[in-house]
Amino acid sequence: MKTKIALGVDIGGTNVAFGLCDEKGTSFFESSVPTKSFASPELLVDEIYSVIENQGLLDSLVGIGVGAPNGNINTGSIEFAPNLPWKGSIPLAALFEARFGIKAIVTNDANAAAIGEMIYGNAKDLKDFVLITLGTGLGSGIVANGKLIYGHDGFAGEYGHFRVIPDGRSCGCGRKGCLETYVSATGVVRSAMELNSPNKDVSALSRLESISAQDVFELATSGDAFAEEIVDFTAEKLGGALADYTCFSSPASYILFGGIAQNGAPFADKVKTYMEQHILNIYQDKIEIRVSALHDKNAAVLGSCSLVWNELN
Amino acid sequence: MKTKIALGVDIGGTNVAFGLCDEKGTSFFESSVPTKSFASPELLVDEIYSVIENQGLLDSLVGIGVGAPNGNINTGSIEFAPNLPWKGSIPLAALFEARFGIKAIVTNDANAAAIGEMIYGNAKDLKDFVLITLGTGLGSGIVANGKLIYGHDGFAGEYGHFRVIPDGRSCGCGRKGCLETYVSATGVVRSAMELNSPNKDVSALSRLESISAQDVFELATSGDAFAEEIVDFTAEKLGGALADYTCFSSPASYILFGGIAQNGAPFADKVKTYMEQHILNIYQDKIEIRVSALHDKNAAVLGSCSLVWNELN
Repeated sequence: MKTKIALGVDIGGTNVAFGLCDEKGTSFFESSVPTKSFASPELLVDEIYSVIENQGLLDSLVGIGVGAPNGNINTGSIEFAPNLPWKGSIPLAALFEARFGIKAIVTNDANAAAIGEMIYGNAKDLKDFVLITLGTGLGSGIVANGKLIYGHDGFAGEYGHFRVIPDGRSCGCGRKGCLETYVSATGVVRSAMELNSPNKDVSALSRLESISAQDVFELATSGDAFAEEIVDFTAEKLGGALADYTCFSSPASYILFGGIAQNGAPFADKVKTYMEQHILNIYQDKIEIRVSALHDKNAAVLGSCSLVWNELN
Repeated sequence: MKTKIALGVDIGGTNVAFGLCDEKGTSFFESSVPTKSFASPELLVDEIYSVIENQGLLDSLVGIGVGAPNGNINTGSIEFAPNLPWKGSIPLAALFEARFGIKAIVTNDANAAAIGEMIYGNAKDLKDFVLITLGTGLGSGIVANGKLIYGHDGFAGEYGHFRVIPDGRSCGCGRKGCLETYVSATGVVRSAMELNSPNKDVSALSRLESISAQDVFELATSGDAFAEEIVDFTAEKLGGALADYTCFSSPASYILFGGIAQNGAPFADKVKTYMEQHILNIYQDKIEIRVSALHDKNAAVLGSCSLVWNELN
């Protein structure tokens, strides 16, 4: 019997990563192409088809999973994606299905990561968890009763736009105080600019030509007091928000994924400490903060492949 | 073939209401007893058994649904219920099962109401909705993908303890700024005391010997300006909170149940207006605010009966 293989595609503003893997997560092929080099999504699909055809594995393909910003499982389309070169609603599932002749499924990247964590990563034992992606922004994939929550319109899990500070920082969405303006790579840089502290002037951050979230986390690890304060502030905002989130779906675990989460246990432990300080008594000392197990793998492609095994069949 | 009948029991701090109904919601019997007249939960179960036995319908009973504050479906028990006369963890499902010899299921009253709305009420057409109970406090039952979300520990849906104002009003839970300190019968009375307005001194509320949320809503309807401001403040707090909640499970509808929700469409419309002002653009003009269809029926007993049809089978 032939091994069944899934094609996973992760569409980002800069690159489109894609690859082939089986249900165990064994990778057979991986590649990526620059997103902006394709004038239309049809040309992108043609290119991916041509590359996969050259691998001689088309016969083993059983489905295609696509993770993309604002990908919507109900419509199979990307909708309102500000960072992609193609305008309007893009019917990606239909384009892939027409070209490959097999089923395709589209959802957002955080949902794909949550399913990936459930199939291949640190959520194999969990029926109720929330995966939090900490990248340029903050995304989330919510799993309850072992199923991903898509919402009535396919747009559930926009946790980055939960407002945590009334009239707080301005967000790209036009509202104020959204969680991702504090807890994300851009949020961390903003905190470096906005926070005041006696330690700011003597911090190494004040002598850099440019500041990234990674700079802040590395300096915090090496003992820079102002950088430590920023990491602490970020962890408090996330911990407080997770304490409140728990009132909704009461997950067994939060899994931190990508970007600043790659700093691992020390950040997750801080988040846990603040979460416990703010959480309702019935939830105390019950809920874990885990770090993704997919950071050292091609998590985006694995997550997209996992959609085929979990959501398509 | 005999009609299948469920026993529904709603345990409150003042009364225990119970009744028999079939899957269509036809009621065969209803009664209630004062909670505090039973020195132990065993005696309560004995009394209910004796009353139901007298109805001659024991043979038709297929299951027992129990709604109770802090009722937990995983354990079948009531845990930490401050308003009940019996202390500690109360294994209600086991007590009912032992006495009646049929299956029993226990969950909190808001979850029971959500299932009741899905089986008998205003959510028959919905797979994704949130029922909000507005009573002494604020409770919620979350339905996603057609299933109630219980959470990993059975305690999901504690929406009343979502904090909406940092360092806001003190809550009975020991934290500050919880939604139910603003949006509930007690929250409305608190607003009448705390809010200031040029209209306060001339309001009829300032001439009452005691103030209830119902007084505030009735005076608002009759044009009392300060009462209108309180209703408006309450609607804004709830509308803003629902706007943020939408980022999680993106329900098609919120259904307002009990207490101040019985004021019907005018309050629901105000909540909707504020929700739309605060909501993320991708959700705009998509999400309904409905009022429960069970207000004119014995909603609590129906909700508990519905557990038998939806959660037990």
